Amino acid sequence: MTQPGPARAPRGRPRSERVRLAVLDATADLLTEGGLPAATIERIAARAGVSKATIYKWWPTRGHVVLDSFFTRTRDTIAVDPDASLADSLTAQLDALSALFRDTPLGRLMRELAAVAQGDADVRDALEKRWLRPRRAVTVRLLREAAERGELRAEIDLEVVADQLWAPIYHRLLFGHAPLRDGLAADLVGQLLTGLLPRR
Amino acid sequence: MTQPGPARAPRGRPRSERVRLAVLDATADLLTEGGLPAATIERIAARAGVSKATIYKWWPTRGHVVLDSFFTRTRDTIAVDPDASLADSLTAQLDALSALFRDTPLGRLMRELAAVAQGDADVRDALEKRWLRPRRAVTVRLLREAAERGELRAEIDLEVVADQLWAPIYHRLLFGHAPLRDGLAADLVGQLLTGLLPRR
Repeated sequence: MTQPGPARAPRGRPRSERVRLAVLDATADLLTEGGLPAATIERIAARAGVSKATIYKWWPTRGHVVLDSFFTRTRDTIAVDPDASLADSLTAQLDALSALFRDTPLGRLMRELAAVAQGDADVRDALEKRWLRPRRAVTVRLLREAAERGELRAEIDLEVVADQLWAPIYHRLLFGHAPLRDGLAADLVGQLLTGLLPRR
Repeated sequence: MTQPGPARAPRGRPRSERVRLAVLDATADLLTEGGLPAATIERIAARAGVSKATIYKWWPTRGHVVLDSFFTRTRDTIAVDPDASLADSLTAQLDALSALFRDTPLGRLMRELAAVAQGDADVRDALEKRWLRPRRAVTVRLLREAAERGELRAEIDLEVVADQLWAPIYHRLLFGHAPLRDGLAADLVGQLLTGLLPRR
């Protein structure tokens, strides 16, 4: 995990892309090792073997580098199987996030980012635009496609649906009132799709 | 809002109760004026006209005083009308919290508390036990009573239901990706009770 950056970037790509990947790798390593405080622009630049100016050519702020890095290491969790049912697709996404927060250092890191975001508009903006929005967009697209196939009721606010699916996982991570247990994702999806009222 | 503590406590109560209310009032005033950093034990004691030792006789830590105070000023938002339907009761609760976060200084304060809680186990514990749990308990009780009347499907995890109702409001407050808009509470309750799938 600690091999310095540029050597790890895949060969055969343009230099700018190699530099970008080296910076993201260096950032991810620093975050994994020491959390948010460890990932300063100075340390990222040193580990990636680039200048601070190079970093700022690609990212407006430290918050954006951190979130891009966070996102890069976890991109697979929003992959969608085109043949899966709506329920299975949603459950797989939520389950991946729940496991990510519960079983990897990204759980602690998300808690740090969420905390810093309350007093740092840059981090809050990056967290929203680079992390939350892309994931919500996948969910909302799946829901919209299902609605167009007539699989969902018409009078639904899809942004609220996204909150009712994703927010409980963040809520449990941040407040610790209940565990990110196995089966949570399936319950979240099942209860919302089917509803709580008896189907008669 | 700035009249010092003891004089504001209702007359005719035991002295210990007057002192307790004076401390909570002083804390709430400090929080309203300057947020979490302003509510130190020293300042709370000075404004309430009591000693620090007196405060620690009632509360184990600063986090608990802060949360008790927060809770005292907002107790009305979890009042339940015994004649209201389940949907109306839940909607009223969620709507009150949403308005509290959106329209009063308690929104900013909850963001501060949530942030501090990520690095301070005392505040996190107090936030969970003195704020989240009492509210969730009201919701879960309403849901359990409805389930016993046969108004809900049997195979439901009520703790997950509580998350799907409450967590979206905290999520929007903390991450700012969508507003705490009018009608959000009704949508949260309606979508979860009825479900997203067509009812045929």
